[in-house]
Amino acid sequence: MIPTLSWRNNSVVLLDQQALPVEERVLVCTRYQEVLTAIKDLTVRGAPAIGVAAAMGIALGSLSLPADSPEGFRKGFDALCDQFAAARPTAKNLFWAIERMKGCFAGAMADAMTGETEKVRQALVDEALRMAEEDVAINRRIGRNGQILIPDGARILTHCNAGALATAGYGTALGVIRAARDAGKTIQVFADETRPVLQGARLTAWELQQENIPVTLITDNMAGFLMKQGLVDCVLVGADRIAANGDTANKIGTYSLAVLADAHSIPFYVAAPLSTIDRQLSSGADIPIEERPDEEVLAIRGVRIAPVGVGVYNPAFDVTPGGYIEAIISEAGVARFPYESSLEKLFLEPS
Amino acid sequence: MIPTLSWRNNSVVLLDQQALPVEERVLVCTRYQEVLTAIKDLTVRGAPAIGVAAAMGIALGSLSLPADSPEGFRKGFDALCDQFAAARPTAKNLFWAIERMKGCFAGAMADAMTGETEKVRQALVDEALRMAEEDVAINRRIGRNGQILIPDGARILTHCNAGALATAGYGTALGVIRAARDAGKTIQVFADETRPVLQGARLTAWELQQENIPVTLITDNMAGFLMKQGLVDCVLVGADRIAANGDTANKIGTYSLAVLADAHSIPFYVAAPLSTIDRQLSSGADIPIEERPDEEVLAIRGVRIAPVGVGVYNPAFDVTPGGYIEAIISEAGVARFPYESSLEKLFLEPS
Repeated sequence: MIPTLSWRNNSVVLLDQQALPVEERVLVCTRYQEVLTAIKDLTVRGAPAIGVAAAMGIALGSLSLPADSPEGFRKGFDALCDQFAAARPTAKNLFWAIERMKGCFAGAMADAMTGETEKVRQALVDEALRMAEEDVAINRRIGRNGQILIPDGARILTHCNAGALATAGYGTALGVIRAARDAGKTIQVFADETRPVLQGARLTAWELQQENIPVTLITDNMAGFLMKQGLVDCVLVGADRIAANGDTANKIGTYSLAVLADAHSIPFYVAAPLSTIDRQLSSGADIPIEERPDEEVLAIRGVRIAPVGVGVYNPAFDVTPGGYIEAIISEAGVARFPYESSLEKLFLEPS
Repeated sequence: MIPTLSWRNNSVVLLDQQALPVEERVLVCTRYQEVLTAIKDLTVRGAPAIGVAAAMGIALGSLSLPADSPEGFRKGFDALCDQFAAARPTAKNLFWAIERMKGCFAGAMADAMTGETEKVRQALVDEALRMAEEDVAINRRIGRNGQILIPDGARILTHCNAGALATAGYGTALGVIRAARDAGKTIQVFADETRPVLQGARLTAWELQQENIPVTLITDNMAGFLMKQGLVDCVLVGADRIAANGDTANKIGTYSLAVLADAHSIPFYVAAPLSTIDRQLSSGADIPIEERPDEEVLAIRGVRIAPVGVGVYNPAFDVTPGGYIEAIISEAGVARFPYESSLEKLFLEPS
């Protein structure tokens, strides 16, 4: 079991994903500000993991919020939530998790008698822990639903890391791969390195090695040539935000893979929990795309690779139109194009 | 003028392209083995530059060949050529240059009286220097022929480095960009970094900075998203080998860009001298594709980015079908699909 994130003795313990794979070390956050920084600097990353980490961070922050008056406590809680909401803009799960913590807070405040602040705090901690547990269970259901689509012997290309490291455990895209392997299928994975932050090379390669699932590392620009040679049976990725029409924001480079898969008639799958779906957005055009510092492109792990002063464009995500996506795999089932109706239907299913 | 390679006092002087852009230093090769190693380890790279460097290396090697008998001299010369032919497999220009040096040797041997070995050696040196001069002149003609295709204000995406650094000077794809700029056009370049060896980030960004041509660096996986946003007017690359039907081997990632350009109705241009065209190969299926060491993918500039023991696939080139190429720009003119006839026609033109 990969210890992506956990709650221990009123602290949030994060596996330091910036240190992997060279070093396996954890970051113990005793203050919510440390969790906030860890989300911003990618110590913890991946849409579902960001959501759970934020929930734990908010629970942690609530422990030290002044509660002289209910109104002061409420204001402090809202300000805490606002800080986490501003940490990263693209992943829907972050906002979903904050909304859920807000709902928990409102309910606990309504139930609590004056002065029962500790009960509210405990409710927030319990809710964050419940979200972590649920996330693992949801990923296992995604795995079960998705593995049916994966043929025995499949050679799967994946991008970035949508694994146990991107969630509270098990993973979305890599969860489908785990489930297919556990169903007795022989699976080979191509992991592209995923510049600039190298989540594929550093995290997916490491995670699949831990699982003894065969993995071959390629650079991002090799994907098309692999497909042309008939070496890829499907592409399987996670998601950061899915609009109502199936348009999917995911790590930069996903869109290129979807177009390449389409040109080679290779199915392109997205695996994500319902909490990634933004039912308020009719299309991907309105998904905010985070741009990250130039330095991520100009240097790799601290080593400069480009001349000083060169211009850089560094969007962290792109949007793949729903029409390129063969299926969106969720815990409530598999949706197919056209997604307006099929995604809505997922929310009606008992999951 | 970028001093990619030159002949000075019976030595071959190479700009060390592995040290760029962090350091500008030259490698002075006084023995042909150093030139051979420099070709293998990418101190000098780019198809036309490899051809000229090999010619100079062969000339350098001939200076110290035993010439006790014409037969011994001939055998030594052939062995020298064989070593250079084994240096790298994909670029046609290498084999073209070796053939030309062999032709020069045969001619000079036929003309020389017994014992006039120095005359033969001088002929080889002269031939190598002539090839370097011609290469610059050819690139300028490629530039003139190609810049007509580039509209004022064009935002051009280029891959790897097909510039002065990849040739004896001026460049093929970057030669077209230089010529367009010199014709008074406003040009903006997107350079993708070109993993694994980072020729885009290290060399193209540096070369365009030297020329004051605006350049924005992106990672390879951003190209599709750029195109989707309407930020790319054309793609312009060099070539390592072009088959008779226009199928083009070029740096890994070129094929992905061609498919992406096609999906976005963006013209995709190849700029290369006639010496890159392999008229003997009917299609790109028979172009040998070099696979390079895993370490290029597992580490970047010496820094490990992936777990020990992970599998790697590292083809250095891919092949783009002629059908994806809007035009092939040569010193003899511009060829268009179908290429069987249009490329042959280029060889008939007075150039």
